[in-house]
Amino acid sequence: MSRISFKEMQTTIKQAFVKAGLSEEKADICAHVHAGSSRDGVYSHGLNRVARFVEYIQKGWVNADAEPTLEKRLTAIEIYNGNLGPGVLNAQFAMNRAMELAENHGLGMVGLNNTTHWMRGGTYGRQAAEKGFVALCWTNTESCMPAWGAKSVGIGNNPFILAVPREKGHLVLDMAMSQYSYGKLQVTRLKNEKLPYPGGFDENGYLSNEPGAIEQTKRILPTGFWKGSGMAILLDILSAILSNGLSTAGIDRAGKGSCGRCNQVFIAFDPVKITGKQFMDKVVEETIAQIKSSQPADENTNIFYPGEQSLKIRNENLRLGIPVDKGIWEEVKKLASE
Amino acid sequence: MSRISFKEMQTTIKQAFVKAGLSEEKADICAHVHAGSSRDGVYSHGLNRVARFVEYIQKGWVNADAEPTLEKRLTAIEIYNGNLGPGVLNAQFAMNRAMELAENHGLGMVGLNNTTHWMRGGTYGRQAAEKGFVALCWTNTESCMPAWGAKSVGIGNNPFILAVPREKGHLVLDMAMSQYSYGKLQVTRLKNEKLPYPGGFDENGYLSNEPGAIEQTKRILPTGFWKGSGMAILLDILSAILSNGLSTAGIDRAGKGSCGRCNQVFIAFDPVKITGKQFMDKVVEETIAQIKSSQPADENTNIFYPGEQSLKIRNENLRLGIPVDKGIWEEVKKLASE
Repeated sequence: MSRISFKEMQTTIKQAFVKAGLSEEKADICAHVHAGSSRDGVYSHGLNRVARFVEYIQKGWVNADAEPTLEKRLTAIEIYNGNLGPGVLNAQFAMNRAMELAENHGLGMVGLNNTTHWMRGGTYGRQAAEKGFVALCWTNTESCMPAWGAKSVGIGNNPFILAVPREKGHLVLDMAMSQYSYGKLQVTRLKNEKLPYPGGFDENGYLSNEPGAIEQTKRILPTGFWKGSGMAILLDILSAILSNGLSTAGIDRAGKGSCGRCNQVFIAFDPVKITGKQFMDKVVEETIAQIKSSQPADENTNIFYPGEQSLKIRNENLRLGIPVDKGIWEEVKKLASE
Repeated sequence: MSRISFKEMQTTIKQAFVKAGLSEEKADICAHVHAGSSRDGVYSHGLNRVARFVEYIQKGWVNADAEPTLEKRLTAIEIYNGNLGPGVLNAQFAMNRAMELAENHGLGMVGLNNTTHWMRGGTYGRQAAEKGFVALCWTNTESCMPAWGAKSVGIGNNPFILAVPREKGHLVLDMAMSQYSYGKLQVTRLKNEKLPYPGGFDENGYLSNEPGAIEQTKRILPTGFWKGSGMAILLDILSAILSNGLSTAGIDRAGKGSCGRCNQVFIAFDPVKITGKQFMDKVVEETIAQIKSSQPADENTNIFYPGEQSLKIRNENLRLGIPVDKGIWEEVKKLASE
């Protein structure tokens, strides 16, 4: 494992994206998001997804030049067609619009259809939190997980994000409806490690903590067994209804790769308009204090608020450099220099 | 185990509630909700919670006469003080207002502070679905679960509900952030059964599927380990911010029993205004078709959409009568006749 500075990683990814056909400005934003995800420890959706994004542009599954277009407006709701543009840019645009609507109405919702992979969902929670907004957003995906009771894949893992701003470190929950994302399985396999808890079923139908065995069967375990399965099904249906987009079944038929033609829903709340910043800060601090004063399960276990571990990893990676898999880093450097 | 008709159960619960001080009209609605939960198989939050509700009125933790009062209005948002009124009535009122706001704006949100236990959260998802609305709502609770990494309780299990209307049977997800609710632990223990999957830690710190052992330690397992813990923390903070209410830490200090002074958030979406009923129906049916066409894990396993099992149990219980624990049924009959 090597470590690369944030600046070097961002510059290299940007070059790869410019070579792939993105404008300088768009490549800059996308590279910042990918490098930022790796910096925060979400390697699977940072550097490790650069090559796939470039491949999708080459295949025509992502349109490097497309911009979102307004389809509908209704008080605090707007619906956009993402026109298969880069998912990161579409999602940033949509969250930004949701915040503008929330500034006027206390709350704003944007439904975004026909978009592409937004990479790390937490990016958009943090985007809102940075501007002082509370956010709730989610995406649907292609089928990548069996519904509870099934052994063939039929539902998405539909990541769901909640975010609350806090000066000393935002609270951000970024959870897929699978106990582990395929990205986490990949990263764990690349490190030759096992999962800390079972993450799916192996080819013999037994619960397993071997990432490779689960990647093969695609029988990843829904978060909380039947609960994550049910939540994934309804997040999918809601995302389609609220964005005028395709359900997971429709995305499967479209066949444009991981999250090609998926939908996202962005809801922003302006806490200043609703109950005030001082009130929010009090609620957040007393909740963190309550969690931190719990008795730890054992002396080696820390109790974190959602987003705290990302912040710790961010600080470490900024100090020491961002760890990279050598093969993946060489591949991205090659894409940047071709 | 005996079986009681829906009508007999509702009438008996209503009498118990009238004796406890509720008006005829309020007792009628509350009894319908409690009996309806038992009818749908959610025994833990139906008949089994009648005695506790009566006890809370006697203790002054629930105010039988209180009505919600408006605190704030902002385009499609309203905030109400529940004034410690019966949680079921406050929640029905709030979901109804959210739907009225959604009729005008496509979406409506009601934050409800200072309320009491809403019993079965799915009730309000179904209430919205019955009128053709898509709904998202949740509640916070007192501390009843350890945060991930802790062994003392410090967070709520904060049930979260998603609902989509469907003529042949609504889709309703009703999930607590614990893998099992305390109600489910109680019901399983009363049946002398074990949990199908581990539900928490026993006194020696081992994962256990013995409901009684988990009830003793209160180390119930968050849904999906760290995921349910993080989601519970953020649902709690959001519910306080969006309703001007108390966080779980504040509810703990208030000390008014299970969910006394809790908050709820109700978001209703009008699918007719957003993308149309025909579109919604298509999305729902193709998603159900996709799930049902999955390969089952084995020949004895069914694949259900969220809410389908409740509907099956409802039909069976309406035909055969609702199963009741004899001790609990006798206790409610006593409350009705005192």
